[in-house]
Amino acid sequence: MKDLDPLPITPDFDVWPVTHAITAARTVDGDVEVTWDDGAVCRYHRLLLAENDPAPDILHPLSRETLLSPIDFPADLAATAAQACGNGALEVTWSDGRAPSRFHPGWLRAHGWFGTPPAAPEPVLWTAEDLPEPPAFDGPEALADPAVFLAWLKALRDYGVARLYGLPQEDGLLEAVVQRIGVIRETNFDRVFTLAIKDDPDSNAYTPHALPLHMDLGTRECPPGLQFLYTRANTTTGGEGLYADAYRVAEDLRASEPATFAALTEIPWEFNNRSKTSAYRATGPVVELDTAGRIRAVRYTTWLRAPMVAPLDVQDRAYRAVRRFADLLHSPRYMMQVTYRAGDLFAFDNRRALHGRNGYDAKGGERFIEGVYSDRDELHSAIRILERKALAAR
Amino acid sequence: MKDLDPLPITPDFDVWPVTHAITAARTVDGDVEVTWDDGAVCRYHRLLLAENDPAPDILHPLSRETLLSPIDFPADLAATAAQACGNGALEVTWSDGRAPSRFHPGWLRAHGWFGTPPAAPEPVLWTAEDLPEPPAFDGPEALADPAVFLAWLKALRDYGVARLYGLPQEDGLLEAVVQRIGVIRETNFDRVFTLAIKDDPDSNAYTPHALPLHMDLGTRECPPGLQFLYTRANTTTGGEGLYADAYRVAEDLRASEPATFAALTEIPWEFNNRSKTSAYRATGPVVELDTAGRIRAVRYTTWLRAPMVAPLDVQDRAYRAVRRFADLLHSPRYMMQVTYRAGDLFAFDNRRALHGRNGYDAKGGERFIEGVYSDRDELHSAIRILERKALAAR
Repeated sequence: MKDLDPLPITPDFDVWPVTHAITAARTVDGDVEVTWDDGAVCRYHRLLLAENDPAPDILHPLSRETLLSPIDFPADLAATAAQACGNGALEVTWSDGRAPSRFHPGWLRAHGWFGTPPAAPEPVLWTAEDLPEPPAFDGPEALADPAVFLAWLKALRDYGVARLYGLPQEDGLLEAVVQRIGVIRETNFDRVFTLAIKDDPDSNAYTPHALPLHMDLGTRECPPGLQFLYTRANTTTGGEGLYADAYRVAEDLRASEPATFAALTEIPWEFNNRSKTSAYRATGPVVELDTAGRIRAVRYTTWLRAPMVAPLDVQDRAYRAVRRFADLLHSPRYMMQVTYRAGDLFAFDNRRALHGRNGYDAKGGERFIEGVYSDRDELHSAIRILERKALAAR
Repeated sequence: MKDLDPLPITPDFDVWPVTHAITAARTVDGDVEVTWDDGAVCRYHRLLLAENDPAPDILHPLSRETLLSPIDFPADLAATAAQACGNGALEVTWSDGRAPSRFHPGWLRAHGWFGTPPAAPEPVLWTAEDLPEPPAFDGPEALADPAVFLAWLKALRDYGVARLYGLPQEDGLLEAVVQRIGVIRETNFDRVFTLAIKDDPDSNAYTPHALPLHMDLGTRECPPGLQFLYTRANTTTGGEGLYADAYRVAEDLRASEPATFAALTEIPWEFNNRSKTSAYRATGPVVELDTAGRIRAVRYTTWLRAPMVAPLDVQDRAYRAVRRFADLLHSPRYMMQVTYRAGDLFAFDNRRALHGRNGYDAKGGERFIEGVYSDRDELHSAIRILERKALAAR
């Protein structure tokens, strides 16, 4: 055993606690097998190790990004020896005579295969019966305390909708809060949009009409994953906010009405916007599945759904499924109703928690709601960074 | 026949020339069958007609968006009569006694089903042998003449890369050009990024190192579809731009090495960025197919590819496929090499035309390249609007 200190850097800036020690290491057909102190055994591919070697000629020490591509390694590269070092690192020797590579044991353990994929946070599906209103957090507290801010973000991630309340009235506050999470996504409705009545509305959102449950910007290849609505004033009559968990409705349909679920997941609709200055179009099923069959997004807005150019029987299946989906979405079991109060900031997953509003009396008071879009990427990144900081501080 | 003039509005702002006349219309089981003057017959679903009725209580006359959801129509709604009017419109009468609906014949023809889906522009795949350099357009001409600007955009859409040359050196020009297309996509690298050497680089892009072919921001659920690089100055030695059509490489692999193609399309990789302040992650196969099996995007950056946590045999298949893909991408058959000159503006599809650069001598001169991201949606929308204007002007 070599006595090396300190441990090598990892090919990232994450924190990898050393929870297990390497008890044995050997090469098997040019790859590396590691046995851990809990008896677990896992094999690491030679190229996984080679390209994640933290040596400065392979991994840029400042960016921590690999400088080499798989084609920069010899085609017949093989690990020829492997051993645990005195500081707990793994050392690997190579067939082409390059310098031995050393790996951080915490990082190595976290990237081993132990028979199942690493666990990822799963959405917590809800009906309006078990979640009558969105998880709510004191706004000023969330802005002052990173732990409360993180709790808000995790509620948004898990439930698809979460609210701050009691925020002060400040121009620019909405942007500032969202930028604490990440990057704002601009659209043709500008960086910050104001939900108010326009003389020449380029969306029904800018009328006082009721809006059934929908997402925004389903006309994009990848619609914004996050939407934030900050109520500055609301003294009108009506205009209550409506929310439903479209994942929950879709999962319930998967279980109870497989033909409806199949039509929602298989038949593509085009969505297009109606505007004099833009013509966005995107095509996809109402419920989008990943390769493992999990729901990863919905695409649903009645007034942006384009006429379907398809055989009549396909149209009929599609319309029946959409009608059934909409029926359930708007039923008391699934749809929550909320009142927007000055100082509220609603955050929701635009591709999961469909939103809408009751119509309102445009002459009955003031209604001033600001909105901003962002993407799920920003939310997940912010949660990881806050969790990394908390882990590093332990 | 009723004599009505003018024709009803359409449920959008597009131009729908009347190319065919309705010779007969009738209802069939509550839907509508239309016979056209060329003998074509097509059937329209009752709900397609009902929700696209341009009457102002159904379609907001200013936003041209439908105010009603399928659930707002009676479940047993049926068309009870259909006829052509004197002005060429179709008139439909309804079972629930609501006012008859009238439809523009150009719009109706365009949304009929004639046995095949409507044609959509297909990418023109290329190798560096048949396309040794990107389609190029005179920059000042393109900015002055909408027809040249449109030609540039269509080349970008079709080839995945297209260049303007001879642009003046102006601060803000890049943003202004991209905003003529659509909305800029901000990222953690800011709204406009400058490719220069940073002391504490948060990406290998900010070093003078060579960069193998890659996309930017493959760490996002939906990476930016467009990238624009505007050369302000380039007198360094080296640093040539590299481009390859990853769709073409993938299609060639589909034809010649199905096992490699399967590994590229089926095995998900995680991509993660390495940063002190952000932790973006996205997972997907290197080559992403749509439900019809067409390639719709690639996800490929060596230095953002995360260690794969998977059984060794899956890793081995994945590494072999990536290595083969990278080998082909960087071969003379597929990779074009270009010199960035002051006044060049390269536009490319970040999810199709992979880009890279040779290393450069940081002390050998000045290198100042500005970049901006946007999305494919913006490109397609801009093309449609320019085409709509050209059609309306005829």
